[in-house]
Amino acid sequence: MSSIEAILSRADKEFDQSIARLFELMRIESVSADPACKNACFEASEWVRQILCNIGFNVSVYATAGHPIVLGHYRPAESCAGPHLLFYGHYDVQPPDPLDLWERPPFDPYIGSLNGQDCIVGRGACDDKGQMMTFIEAMRVIKQETGDLPLKITVIVEGEEEILSPSLGGFLAAHRELADVDYALICDTNMWDAKTPAITTRLRGTLSEEIVVTGPDCDLHSGSFGGTVINPIQALTHVLGRLHTDCSRVNVPGFYDGISDLPAAIKTEWNNLIFDETEFLSDTGLNRAFGEPEYTVLERLWARPTLEFNGIFGGYSGEGLKAIIPSKAGAKITCRLVPGQNPEAVRTKIRAFVVDKLPDGVTAEFLGGEACSAVEIDVGAEVFSRIKTELTSEWGKPAAMIGCGGSIPVVQSFQNLLGIDSILIGFGLADDATHSPNEKYNLKCFRGGIRSWVRILTSVATMANTTFEK
Amino acid sequence: MSSIEAILSRADKEFDQSIARLFELMRIESVSADPACKNACFEASEWVRQILCNIGFNVSVYATAGHPIVLGHYRPAESCAGPHLLFYGHYDVQPPDPLDLWERPPFDPYIGSLNGQDCIVGRGACDDKGQMMTFIEAMRVIKQETGDLPLKITVIVEGEEEILSPSLGGFLAAHRELADVDYALICDTNMWDAKTPAITTRLRGTLSEEIVVTGPDCDLHSGSFGGTVINPIQALTHVLGRLHTDCSRVNVPGFYDGISDLPAAIKTEWNNLIFDETEFLSDTGLNRAFGEPEYTVLERLWARPTLEFNGIFGGYSGEGLKAIIPSKAGAKITCRLVPGQNPEAVRTKIRAFVVDKLPDGVTAEFLGGEACSAVEIDVGAEVFSRIKTELTSEWGKPAAMIGCGGSIPVVQSFQNLLGIDSILIGFGLADDATHSPNEKYNLKCFRGGIRSWVRILTSVATMANTTFEK
Repeated sequence: MSSIEAILSRADKEFDQSIARLFELMRIESVSADPACKNACFEASEWVRQILCNIGFNVSVYATAGHPIVLGHYRPAESCAGPHLLFYGHYDVQPPDPLDLWERPPFDPYIGSLNGQDCIVGRGACDDKGQMMTFIEAMRVIKQETGDLPLKITVIVEGEEEILSPSLGGFLAAHRELADVDYALICDTNMWDAKTPAITTRLRGTLSEEIVVTGPDCDLHSGSFGGTVINPIQALTHVLGRLHTDCSRVNVPGFYDGISDLPAAIKTEWNNLIFDETEFLSDTGLNRAFGEPEYTVLERLWARPTLEFNGIFGGYSGEGLKAIIPSKAGAKITCRLVPGQNPEAVRTKIRAFVVDKLPDGVTAEFLGGEACSAVEIDVGAEVFSRIKTELTSEWGKPAAMIGCGGSIPVVQSFQNLLGIDSILIGFGLADDATHSPNEKYNLKCFRGGIRSWVRILTSVATMANTTFEK
Repeated sequence: MSSIEAILSRADKEFDQSIARLFELMRIESVSADPACKNACFEASEWVRQILCNIGFNVSVYATAGHPIVLGHYRPAESCAGPHLLFYGHYDVQPPDPLDLWERPPFDPYIGSLNGQDCIVGRGACDDKGQMMTFIEAMRVIKQETGDLPLKITVIVEGEEEILSPSLGGFLAAHRELADVDYALICDTNMWDAKTPAITTRLRGTLSEEIVVTGPDCDLHSGSFGGTVINPIQALTHVLGRLHTDCSRVNVPGFYDGISDLPAAIKTEWNNLIFDETEFLSDTGLNRAFGEPEYTVLERLWARPTLEFNGIFGGYSGEGLKAIIPSKAGAKITCRLVPGQNPEAVRTKIRAFVVDKLPDGVTAEFLGGEACSAVEIDVGAEVFSRIKTELTSEWGKPAAMIGCGGSIPVVQSFQNLLGIDSILIGFGLADDATHSPNEKYNLKCFRGGIRSWVRILTSVATMANTTFEK
């Protein structure tokens, strides 16, 4: 039996232990958004520290203004030629609300059956405790089977990903030595489908903005003033209602500036993916997709920018009637951006459009918000072809090179602060309900994830350093 | 000394007692919107019953699903030729919130000084306890001075006016004998200014509507779905942003159907009123009026209809960011209507416009809401010329014939259910803060109000019945 097969065999034999360890972590209520869970977040960081120590990592836990960041280093006993990898994960989870929709308590994990698939069920089953543990368990079985890890590995596990990682940027800026890393690995994305592994090579960026329009100083009686003062909801909807043409294209001049046509090769690759629009929309209650008709649904999702209203507010929204002209009205906006768009330039254009269209008599205030550029990963490097090969071996199907409509700000932080490219491989599925009740992670995904990382780490370790050194 | 002067002299001499009685009523926390004040509302109804009994009324207190309605009848000892008058008032008041903005507790009335004017301060000082008591005190002094009242008077005092009078319609429908009344008197409006009395001859109607637009069944992640599903806030603002042209005229086809030009005489009368736009806007923070440029501000307020957004809601409106495509978005709308507009026809037109402009992929639901027509009172009858004469005598200036931008639904109920015209005379001022902290009623208004009613009742009692009988 070759070394790799012995390791995979051990991963299978010890899979029950892997589940048991994941359950231990899932029982810790590390909800980063909930101040009542602060102690649990510390407990989870300590749990991660311990499990990395057990593998032989040299681990430090860094205090932050919020929850601790765990930083572990592994240096192989013998010098190795392969790249230095940085694995990033997070031990915090989303709040479990609404609790009454869970079939069992969210922090009491169990193995259940869903659509004939055995799944781990509980908050964090996938995002990101389950996904993170695929990598940690892979390292554990390699170490146990071979006595060492085959390359330099650094691990960062934070506890604030679900609240937008407020401490991570400062931490990375203070640890410039991490720039020594060759590639970051992130296991927080999905497979293409339950049988097809995937590497995510494009992420949309994000730009968030909040607009507040003010008319009168205070709410006014609509009988006493109606017809003689401007209504800020009227002014706001006048502007917002003109931000899109025919409801599908963004109407802000220059919004699409800098965007290149999608390369034909990527177009072809995406067209070859079997995309089921009905299944995609199955939990939305909608019967057909919407959007720019000249693009496929996947292109709209992965390669086209959006301007989306996340919330709108103003005046009275309780039961019944309150006949007022409100003082204020506002809206929260998030743009999803694609490569070529500069977030702050887009922000400037949106603000100019709003100011231009705003009726006289009201004022607009812009509260700003987060921004990060889109990411496009160059998949020409050898590491990608090796990873594709290993994923194909494990799953019996070629790995899909896919996009992602969302943003993973840490990828941009690694690029901007440390100059590191990220490799996004995850084993989640679209129906994992990651931020919802009854979050799950298929047992096949958990097992296949561990086995995939075993293969990938083993293969990448044998790369000649001429193929990756910066 | 003539009889009328003796009565007015008594009113002045006993004015301190009138204030003391009003204070008694103001100390009762009869906030109709607050279930905790239910007992106080009963207490206030009992207080009103007692004060009417003291004057010699035959009083019944009617239970309703909410707060009691007090109904009192006075029949003069000797038969009289004058009209049968119905006085309407309400003993309930608005909630006192926000409490921290009151200079003294809202239900502990006192006499304070504001801009050099002595005022009664406290919740209900004007609306409607103070205004109602001008009429009741007028009756009291007439009775005490002359031993009788000079005409048939019926009094209705309800306790749900501030919550839209849910019980009053049913009560009136069950008391058709009230149709015997010749005129209703309502003391719940304002003077033109602190020196100029007014009769309100036009009220705008009301039409309220709530629109809820639904896109996906549940909130969706804007990264996972953005660009491929329709955003209901986008759809809603697309429609709402087109309900007005250039932000001043309503863009719904047929909205203005049926509206006649304002008669030249009324236009002239309103133009002759000294209207100070700066003072009108003084508490709004706005420096100029808005609206249809071809109409004066008073015409926009009293004679032009509006379509006003009272509230808008949808998605996430808390702190920070939530990158969702919301499932629903909605808006609350109130139209102010003018004579000639049929409320339900206007509703139908607005709904048709919304449905027509709504993008595909979302659905709109209309929740409806209250409606009442505008009121235009024919001031040609003799009773109006008599009242004008008496108000001029009391205040030393001719009474202004004014409009009101708001609605008083009871006026429509009296017309529709009983066939009675209403006469709207009030002694409030624009700065009385009737629904706000530190509500006040000028002592001059309270005293002048009592004296005005003494004059009016005395004069109207001598009208020949040929001038008012139906």
